[in-house]
Amino acid sequence: MRCTKCRQDACLEIRRHNAAFCEACFLGFFRDQVVRAVEHEKMFRRDEPVLVAVSGGKDSLALWDALLELGYETTGFYIGLGIPGYSEPSREKCETFAAARDAKLLIVDLEAEYGLGISETAQRTRRPACSACGLSKRYLFNKVAMDHGFGVIATGHNLDDEAATLFGNVLRWQTGYLGRQAPVLPEENGLVKKVKPLFRLAERETAAYAILRGIDYIVDECPNAVGAKSLFYKDLLNQLEAASPGSKQAFLMGFLEHAQPLFHAQEEVALHPCERCGQPTTTPLCAFCRLREEVARPLQRRGRGRRAKRWPGPRPTPPAPLPLREGGEDGPTLPAPIPDREGGVPEARWSALPLLVKEKEDRALAEPAPPFPDREGGRGG
Amino acid sequence: MRCTKCRQDACLEIRRHNAAFCEACFLGFFRDQVVRAVEHEKMFRRDEPVLVAVSGGKDSLALWDALLELGYETTGFYIGLGIPGYSEPSREKCETFAAARDAKLLIVDLEAEYGLGISETAQRTRRPACSACGLSKRYLFNKVAMDHGFGVIATGHNLDDEAATLFGNVLRWQTGYLGRQAPVLPEENGLVKKVKPLFRLAERETAAYAILRGIDYIVDECPNAVGAKSLFYKDLLNQLEAASPGSKQAFLMGFLEHAQPLFHAQEEVALHPCERCGQPTTTPLCAFCRLREEVARPLQRRGRGRRAKRWPGPRPTPPAPLPLREGGEDGPTLPAPIPDREGGVPEARWSALPLLVKEKEDRALAEPAPPFPDREGGRGG
Repeated sequence: MRCTKCRQDACLEIRRHNAAFCEACFLGFFRDQVVRAVEHEKMFRRDEPVLVAVSGGKDSLALWDALLELGYETTGFYIGLGIPGYSEPSREKCETFAAARDAKLLIVDLEAEYGLGISETAQRTRRPACSACGLSKRYLFNKVAMDHGFGVIATGHNLDDEAATLFGNVLRWQTGYLGRQAPVLPEENGLVKKVKPLFRLAERETAAYAILRGIDYIVDECPNAVGAKSLFYKDLLNQLEAASPGSKQAFLMGFLEHAQPLFHAQEEVALHPCERCGQPTTTPLCAFCRLREEVARPLQRRGRGRRAKRWPGPRPTPPAPLPLREGGEDGPTLPAPIPDREGGVPEARWSALPLLVKEKEDRALAEPAPPFPDREGGRGG
Repeated sequence: MRCTKCRQDACLEIRRHNAAFCEACFLGFFRDQVVRAVEHEKMFRRDEPVLVAVSGGKDSLALWDALLELGYETTGFYIGLGIPGYSEPSREKCETFAAARDAKLLIVDLEAEYGLGISETAQRTRRPACSACGLSKRYLFNKVAMDHGFGVIATGHNLDDEAATLFGNVLRWQTGYLGRQAPVLPEENGLVKKVKPLFRLAERETAAYAILRGIDYIVDECPNAVGAKSLFYKDLLNQLEAASPGSKQAFLMGFLEHAQPLFHAQEEVALHPCERCGQPTTTPLCAFCRLREEVARPLQRRGRGRRAKRWPGPRPTPPAPLPLREGGEDGPTLPAPIPDREGGVPEARWSALPLLVKEKEDRALAEPAPPFPDREGGRGG
């Protein structure tokens, strides 16, 4: 298979664009898509300081790398979530990344600074860990951006993330969330502008970019994400995409063009400052301050509490239903895609990729992360 | 497992209602759901003549049977579509059903009366067969209802059909279709009222009803439906339902309550009578009259024409991801559900079902219908 652009040997096919790229042209394609998102959606200007939320994973580090390469004015922002065995290495990845590029990185430790390490918080409040985590991240993204004078915060949400979120919201027709799902959430009422410059790029493309750029990212899934609903939705959407390339993109882009405005028009939320911390909220005390209060209360035995339901993992891959274009008449046969629940392993020719990263991916796939103790027994709940 | 209502042995579990029923209570449940749909959605009155579109399959015959049992004023309507090996037996099922119940049955033969047998039409117009079929059925439903003085036509669309159609429309955000998807389409501009009294009942429930009632229905899928997109969507939704019972119903009912009105408000279509036949249309000549014109033209060699894309069949069933409630502590172990792409085989205890029907289902499952010659080679197209 040849590169659509330069006719060299291609290393990655992108079926939804009916295209294939060599390494150099793929990196160009990736950055073009980022620029297109940033400029077309009016996310931020070239000279505007942007806070980039980084987790140590492929998406957020690929985003930061691309924005740095493109000459945008960025500062990284890492939140230490206090997840044993996961937070420490992910922080190291971010620090190493920033140091190698001489880039500024802000770090807030949820446990040390707020007494709200996710695992401890989940146990004490009997909430699913992902609920406490999402709440805390949304709060800190806004607060830290405001405190440090950033007008915009960028996150690494990719096309697959956005399509899966949309899918979940559509399945239950959560019109409020549907009205607020967009690649740009404008500044309003004490909320900093939030943008998603990777929303046009699939997960396997951010993984390929990270690998081709030699970014050392944390491959393991967050242990709390095992059995997460979003991964199940991604698996269903991946089946759809395999049968009909472009489905995910058509689903997301069609929504943004034709349906989101209808839901948005229904939406009206009155925000005011939290009585305690001043961050915007719809209630007297914001959810984050209430979470802190709850954690500070003496622990009482109150039964097992709410546990997150475990959703099934991806189904075994069936014999290919449609002839794959890879390995066609005019190109070498590529290795079969390695099953991977997060789409983190691209179908790129491994020989073209840095050996170290390949080995790391293999190891990660061979040894799945142990289930997080707080969520075991959630099966079938 | 015991019947939720009478505590006898149950023969069918309905996980989305967290219920199980014995044979008698299931038939009562089924009819209650039909009555609820008819009355709550104001589909038709007890004494109002209703034309029931029947195909010979489980859904439409179960609908007709339930309406007859409930004392509604019904006439069946069968369209001979001219599909070799399929139309003839399906017509016989309808005739046998009607004769046994002394019920009126109207029959229109598309081939004999309009020269539009589906297979021939598909070949001559180079359309996918399902497109010509859907177009012709929609046209004749309306025309025949009007010609015979029926104010309402009922079809056997069930919850799975409606959820799959919604899923397809949502994936591409076809706002026009979304605005018109409802269990009741009111009479307007020459269009007869159309209703779907089974929209609250799952496909496996209509199958169970048909089997328990001893209805002799055509088990084979229409040969044109092999590889149909709607079956692929049903498979994805079945995976969702297995992981989270009630998902399909929440998806459809949530749409009807929260989103459909938004899309409907956007919708405005001006209909006027077709210049040739007088049926409502948006163009000078209606689609059916144009189809007849096209078929009447001399056949020319024009390449292969449009072929329907073949979508993948259901994936191999993985090891059960969640413990099934069937076969629990207080009930006998039920046989594993037989894989079946149309959900036609309920998980009911076979011993409780008429042996003849069981044998028929087994035979149908063992010998899949041969692929329809017009569509072979569509793979990957």
